[in-house]
Amino acid sequence: MKRAFVLLAFLATPLLAAPETPLATGDLGLVIERATGSLLVIDRSDRAAIGRIEGLGDLSHASMTYSPDERFAYVFGRDGGLTKVDMVTQEIVARTVQAGNSIGGAISDDGKLVAVSNYEPGGVKVFDADKLALIADIPADGKTIGLVDVPGRRFAWTVWDTGEVYLGDFSGPEPKIAALGKAGKNPFDAVITDDAHTYLVGLFGEKGVTAYDLWSDKPEPRKFLTDYGKTGEDMPVYKMPHLQGWAFTEGQYALPAVGRHELLWVNRDTLEEVATTPVHGQPVFVIAQPASPFVWVNFATPLNDTVQVVDSRTHEVVATLTPGKAILHMEFAPRGAEVWISSRDDNKVLIYDTRTREKVGEFAAEAPSGIFFTARAHQPGL
Amino acid sequence: MKRAFVLLAFLATPLLAAPETPLATGDLGLVIERATGSLLVIDRSDRAAIGRIEGLGDLSHASMTYSPDERFAYVFGRDGGLTKVDMVTQEIVARTVQAGNSIGGAISDDGKLVAVSNYEPGGVKVFDADKLALIADIPADGKTIGLVDVPGRRFAWTVWDTGEVYLGDFSGPEPKIAALGKAGKNPFDAVITDDAHTYLVGLFGEKGVTAYDLWSDKPEPRKFLTDYGKTGEDMPVYKMPHLQGWAFTEGQYALPAVGRHELLWVNRDTLEEVATTPVHGQPVFVIAQPASPFVWVNFATPLNDTVQVVDSRTHEVVATLTPGKAILHMEFAPRGAEVWISSRDDNKVLIYDTRTREKVGEFAAEAPSGIFFTARAHQPGL
Repeated sequence: MKRAFVLLAFLATPLLAAPETPLATGDLGLVIERATGSLLVIDRSDRAAIGRIEGLGDLSHASMTYSPDERFAYVFGRDGGLTKVDMVTQEIVARTVQAGNSIGGAISDDGKLVAVSNYEPGGVKVFDADKLALIADIPADGKTIGLVDVPGRRFAWTVWDTGEVYLGDFSGPEPKIAALGKAGKNPFDAVITDDAHTYLVGLFGEKGVTAYDLWSDKPEPRKFLTDYGKTGEDMPVYKMPHLQGWAFTEGQYALPAVGRHELLWVNRDTLEEVATTPVHGQPVFVIAQPASPFVWVNFATPLNDTVQVVDSRTHEVVATLTPGKAILHMEFAPRGAEVWISSRDDNKVLIYDTRTREKVGEFAAEAPSGIFFTARAHQPGL
Repeated sequence: MKRAFVLLAFLATPLLAAPETPLATGDLGLVIERATGSLLVIDRSDRAAIGRIEGLGDLSHASMTYSPDERFAYVFGRDGGLTKVDMVTQEIVARTVQAGNSIGGAISDDGKLVAVSNYEPGGVKVFDADKLALIADIPADGKTIGLVDVPGRRFAWTVWDTGEVYLGDFSGPEPKIAALGKAGKNPFDAVITDDAHTYLVGLFGEKGVTAYDLWSDKPEPRKFLTDYGKTGEDMPVYKMPHLQGWAFTEGQYALPAVGRHELLWVNRDTLEEVATTPVHGQPVFVIAQPASPFVWVNFATPLNDTVQVVDSRTHEVVATLTPGKAILHMEFAPRGAEVWISSRDDNKVLIYDTRTREKVGEFAAEAPSGIFFTARAHQPGL
């Protein structure tokens, strides 16, 4: 990537050159360094880290979303911190500890609002994306989970304690909140499909997944995969899989079984299970490689040194890789040429060519977990 | 969008401030001004033009693609000119008139190669994306059309005169070119689906469309829509529709009928026609609104003052707009909140909110045609 120096110049004082500053942001990204509460700024074209931003608080279980110009990231920390960082100047530009314990957030389709779902106290807070000023505070009868953006300056979320799903419209002067009924007992996470058509809610208190058609004027709960969820006591669940780890490919959902060494494949139209794939361990993330028939899977501890590649046409494992220790996350270049893999216990990010499935680069990172490229700015639901 | 001044500073001379320079490129774009051979640099967040780049030669029937960092555009002109422009400095940084007459191009999935398909002489030329140095020159027995990028540093293209389809692999030291057989008589255009699964070739010399499964080890021609193509002499074809104007939505292809006032809907799996939609005129572009069930359609002269919105579930027209004179193109914000529409004969670009379908902004442009946001950098096939 070509660069230039941005000179922070004051005529009366000697010129000081700031660190090298990128003049384009389409190939940048951030890596969460969970142990140190810091973010590594990465450059996909350089296959390297180009800076570090510190002081983000508790980044265990953190996630983020990007502004439409791909300059700013909004980072949702476990400690209730909402932090806006500037990837060009590599600085924190705004930060608010807006709750005692939070579990993720989303940005509105027009980039004007950032919403956060909270555990303590429950509910959703909505901020203006510019200064992080509080715009709306929507209480809930419990912990909120599964907050996603819905087109038309809307957000959807779910309450763990009551099982209720809500759709909030923030396009007018006052928020309009619609209750969409109960998804089921103790929903633990939710996700929206890449076309913003379906909101999928995973249940913990009972078996099954509940789908809402968000293109409908009156979305209603529709339960499927009624055997999905915790199995018996014979097999411990090492990590509850994220629903953000569902892949949408070839007219199917590919999702991790809970507590079993399997992927499940569901027909996207009929919501019927069409296949299972035996895999190496308990799957955590199942991520579709763009522009390909493949999904990549990582696994829960203690089998988390392995990544498998599965063909969504045959549902068969086509490759097994052992990139490093404690593989926590994978992020694809948006056209699919590379996958970036975080190896927490090797303190490295590894870069693989998706066609040869061979390593083409790596760099150091402090206990890296999530990897987020700015291309997410352009994808509904991310 | 926040900005800063980039100071082009020389210590011994007075400081000169360059024009305002964007520090992030995720929300930029270019509008082709066909009559004047210029490009308007646009900013989605500002809903405005922020500059103009001149000297691009003949931009009738021009298209472009973007570098992975969303800083550079590669513009394919009708006169055989391949021009690399820098949207940050708003300058031409490289230009080569590489053929007598060209018809589009593509960038490789890793952003390293740019390929151009030519009419005069026929064939494909491949350039390095940095300096536009010639890397490979693949001759053909006629005019080449329908050049697209295929993952793995590959390109596919088709020859009008012979009907032959080729897949070129440029990942090794020497190009490997595979012939995929004949698509049919006089293919006029081709397109690749958004998942890079299917290469679709439209025929002019006979009726029908030919599909190739590019995920297959041996892609073979499969003909469908065997009534697709020129109709009888009773209805003139005012404009041959682009296959780039096919929408991929809800498990279907939505495509313009040739010479008829209709959209056609094809099941993506079975390749069977499932519905037709009567529309206002001869459709040109059929473009899916992201994260929605809707496609937007514009029309050939003399009915080109109108845009219609069609629901891909019911196949019915749900809105008819008359935004301006000579509506040539539409481009959606990547999360779907807005659509930007070029009105050539009003010399304007119009911005519509996709939810209210009301105009929210406009700005002047010289006879605008294609509108291209940088978000295309992250989409295979664009």
